[in-house]
Amino acid sequence: MMENEVFASFAFYSTTLIIKMYVLAIITGQVRLRKKAFANPEDALRNGGLQYHREDPDVERCRRAHRNDMENIFPFLFLGAVYSLLGPNPIVARIHFLIFCVGRIVHTVAYLLQLKAPTRSVAYSVAQLPCFSMALQVLYAVITRW
Amino acid sequence: MMENEVFASFAFYSTTLIIKMYVLAIITGQVRLRKKAFANPEDALRNGGLQYHREDPDVERCRRAHRNDMENIFPFLFLGAVYSLLGPNPIVARIHFLIFCVGRIVHTVAYLLQLKAPTRSVAYSVAQLPCFSMALQVLYAVITRW
Amino acid sequence: MMENEVFASFAFYSTTLIIKMYVLAIITGQVRLRKKAFANPEDALRNGGLQYHREDPDVERCRRAHRNDMENIFPFLFLGAVYSLLGPNPIVARIHFLIFCVGRIVHTVAYLLQLKAPTRSVAYSVAQLPCFSMALQVLYAVITRW
Repeated sequence: MMENEVFASFAFYSTTLIIKMYVLAIITGQVRLRKKAFANPEDALRNGGLQYHREDPDVERCRRAHRNDMENIFPFLFLGAVYSLLGPNPIVARIHFLIFCVGRIVHTVAYLLQLKAPTRSVAYSVAQLPCFSMALQVLYAVITRW
Repeated sequence: MMENEVFASFAFYSTTLIIKMYVLAIITGQVRLRKKAFANPEDALRNGGLQYHREDPDVERCRRAHRNDMENIFPFLFLGAVYSLLGPNPIVARIHFLIFCVGRIVHTVAYLLQLKAPTRSVAYSVAQLPCFSMALQVLYAVITRW
Repeated sequence: MMENEVFASFAFYSTTLIIKMYVLAIITGQVRLRKKAFANPEDALRNGGLQYHREDPDVERCRRAHRNDMENIFPFLFLGAVYSLLGPNPIVARIHFLIFCVGRIVHTVAYLLQLKAPTRSVAYSVAQLPCFSMALQVLYAVITRW
């Protein structure tokens, strides 16, 4: 499958986005340490005391960004793979993947830097367009095959 | 792989469930706007003021439904794909996918409409049956191959 | 693909981890029943009354463990599959999968049993190593192919 140009392109953008999510997890951990806000008492005890077992708005912001990534990037990992198997035009396919990838990176940046609304929502919506397109193409391919 | 009848059927039900999750995300956004309850201050500012940066029980209900989908539909996307590669009987395979798909749609409806317990839990449990079945079949196939 | 030794090994460890997540969901439900702490009023009504529609630290602990699994095991399901397609050395591949699998099981045990920090964080970090390794190998394979 890695010989398949579309699938290789999909693997590249998908893996880039997974690394982006890993970086977000690392940032969340750094914010927890800097703001001294730990989700677990055992972590707080190791970092100054139980009073640091608390919530923090910056940590929650990171966690919302991460959750939104899970809600949207994980379905892309599936849809993009199945869509790649449909034999789409390589240029059109790459445009799908690129729009999603850029949209999701902008989404994360807008979330973490608290950019003025609706920057984040626009990035989210733009990234959803190739997902809906791929989902419909997969459904269409299966239905016309039956 | 789309020539494979079982995989095509799996792709159909999976993509249907992903679209169901996208619809749930849209519903969540609409409930946020209607109830004026935003997770981020920058969103609240754009929609009337910082006092709308607050939680709302209807929004939280949507978010719980969405999270439960992530916990259960995402593993199905993996298990169903690997199970399809085992060459199962197409009718049996389709029954697995159909039970899961219907169970998860009922789960979402029961969650959003706050149907009387245990409607939602029963839908969840029924949908888990094909997942456990597929997981055991994948493990069995690998172990007997070694 | 199940004839591929690396993919079969990947399928085994992945499915084991998905079953681990299903077990965690069952444990969460049991803790909810034992501590009488329900996320939804309709569930509380069926289990003694609306006063049990409440949060509980043990339930929240289970949910944090589950969420961390989603953040890390789901990307592995993707990375491991694509990495398997690269034709890696079977022994090296199996070491990747095994480290991840053991790391994530230790992570869950450390979370649920509230083991002293940094047990859980170390398990998390060790499990991330094969993920970063696989992600870089996928990116490298695509880039050198272009």
